[in-house]
Amino acid sequence: MTSRMRQEIGQQPEALRQTVATLLPELGAVRAAAARTRQVLFIARGSSDNAAVYGRYLSEAYAGRLGTLAAPSIATSYKRRLDLDGVLAVAISQSGRTEEIVETLEWAKACGAVTVGVTNGEGSPLAEAADVALLTKAGEELAVPATKTYTTQLAALAVLAVGLGADVDPDDLLRVPDEMERLIAETEGSDALEKIAAELAKVPGTVVSARGIAFGTALELALKLKEACYLHAMGLSYADLLHGPIAVVDADTPAIVLGAEGSPTLEGTVALAERVTGAGARVYGIGGGADLASAASVALPGPRLPEWVAPLGLIVPGQLLVERLARTLGIDPDNPRGLRKVTQTGA
Amino acid sequence: MTSRMRQEIGQQPEALRQTVATLLPELGAVRAAAARTRQVLFIARGSSDNAAVYGRYLSEAYAGRLGTLAAPSIATSYKRRLDLDGVLAVAISQSGRTEEIVETLEWAKACGAVTVGVTNGEGSPLAEAADVALLTKAGEELAVPATKTYTTQLAALAVLAVGLGADVDPDDLLRVPDEMERLIAETEGSDALEKIAAELAKVPGTVVSARGIAFGTALELALKLKEACYLHAMGLSYADLLHGPIAVVDADTPAIVLGAEGSPTLEGTVALAERVTGAGARVYGIGGGADLASAASVALPGPRLPEWVAPLGLIVPGQLLVERLARTLGIDPDNPRGLRKVTQTGA
Repeated sequence: MTSRMRQEIGQQPEALRQTVATLLPELGAVRAAAARTRQVLFIARGSSDNAAVYGRYLSEAYAGRLGTLAAPSIATSYKRRLDLDGVLAVAISQSGRTEEIVETLEWAKACGAVTVGVTNGEGSPLAEAADVALLTKAGEELAVPATKTYTTQLAALAVLAVGLGADVDPDDLLRVPDEMERLIAETEGSDALEKIAAELAKVPGTVVSARGIAFGTALELALKLKEACYLHAMGLSYADLLHGPIAVVDADTPAIVLGAEGSPTLEGTVALAERVTGAGARVYGIGGGADLASAASVALPGPRLPEWVAPLGLIVPGQLLVERLARTLGIDPDNPRGLRKVTQTGA
Repeated sequence: MTSRMRQEIGQQPEALRQTVATLLPELGAVRAAAARTRQVLFIARGSSDNAAVYGRYLSEAYAGRLGTLAAPSIATSYKRRLDLDGVLAVAISQSGRTEEIVETLEWAKACGAVTVGVTNGEGSPLAEAADVALLTKAGEELAVPATKTYTTQLAALAVLAVGLGADVDPDDLLRVPDEMERLIAETEGSDALEKIAAELAKVPGTVVSARGIAFGTALELALKLKEACYLHAMGLSYADLLHGPIAVVDADTPAIVLGAEGSPTLEGTVALAERVTGAGARVYGIGGGADLASAASVALPGPRLPEWVAPLGLIVPGQLLVERLARTLGIDPDNPRGLRKVTQTGA
């Protein structure tokens, strides 16, 4: 029987089409909000926080605006006001009902920020609280590990970046759904997926690494491997990895290395993969074209998309790997232990 | 034979005394720099980046100024200018010679930021490049894992926070060295250190968790456990942990939970420890007073210090644990594999 998670991975192209069609007409509202600000503050947890890392790189590398990931405890535990005049606060929550995120968005507004909510929850507290609501059209997601709610968040953040003045072609977004379909077929048609899942099933942990635009994808894949496969997956930028904990990579601890084709960070990513294999450890490459594939021990394909939208496709082979590995390990990917769908993180 | 790492842990009280005595007279220069800015951008890697996380919480929770951890690739790979007018850019590097960090500080200055350098390298490129240099007085550090260069960075960031207008008593800093001495003696005098090291020697990985002011300490301990003990140590804020990857904690994957006494985040930290032990996993507590100690399976003591300077002491039992665990595993704590002292992270 096909898992719900695998079904929902397959629903992403259509969810992306609907989300992009719904959000591109909101560009005027985003531009109006952006015009009153000079920088962006992202408010999120979990997968949404990994989406925020993508939003942050888009904001800085493409729109030239400083991006910050908020520390929600400043609002909810320390209850300290900051001067957020000129700040666009962007809260991201799949359900739109995580109290901590809604509370932090309301705090940001009280501190002077203009607010945007990115959520799949139409009519949710987050959508109601934000000055501008960007509603994703993922439909209902039943598997606990987020897939289509995550990639539609990325699409919303890509639209946001266009509204922030990013020097990109918005039509690139229209190419993503077809490319995602092709990528699912190519990934499942290769032997690499099964091979990597079989190898990862035998190790307690792995390092997941990337840099720049793909870094959020690495963090998201590491999170999913922890949540759904109980793997000790450590997400690290390759710069941080080389700066110290490279020691943790060894014969029993492979590295998964992700890259976006055409990225200025790709050359360093390939060099990292070569260094790890040179030290006798296994490297599983995802994306990064022929260069990363030839540096890796086993490689999964990546999307053929411009760098700024590459993360919308790059996570897909990772999602398929998580689903396959969970089943290899005898875990129901739809219902891993310890998780609920709407998360409250408490005081 | 006593390792150099253990010797350098013991040198921290004196290094702190000298650093605080050197830096408090620099408050005037920090205040002058801060007066021209409204927010802080921290630029760092590795242990210095974990120090930056502390600096960020101080900046926000105590000085009311938005803090951001920089993505150096924006400067070094994407080469994109941001508007950093009104931003105090604080670069942190033990050696002051990591090219990526110096380059990113110079980029920040070119983008309009006022710049501060925190380094143990007098006359280093970083000290020369910054508008204000805060020189730590750690002396020469020979063991590869940073200990006294890290805690003296924390002291410099505490002085920075005072200069940013934090509502704290600067004299609290003068209490830290004696408290650190007491804490080293208390930690080594208890059976808990040996017991936790013996237990951790048998597992492939652990989660290290905290929130708010202690979060940087959790990340630093996780980094050291990876670097010097090759443990799959996953540093996570407790909010992120509860939001998903709590599934990874199990009978073979204990959690190390850190807390600062008197912190508004302590109650939630204790609740996390109770949840993890309730699920059948082991919890090692560090600090957090009697509440966290009684919620933990085994507990190491923490510092008796006001919350804002607690991280200067809180890492010390963790350092002692790393040194003990490395030796238990047959690793030379002074020279773990894969590391050099001055790190270059490449393009």
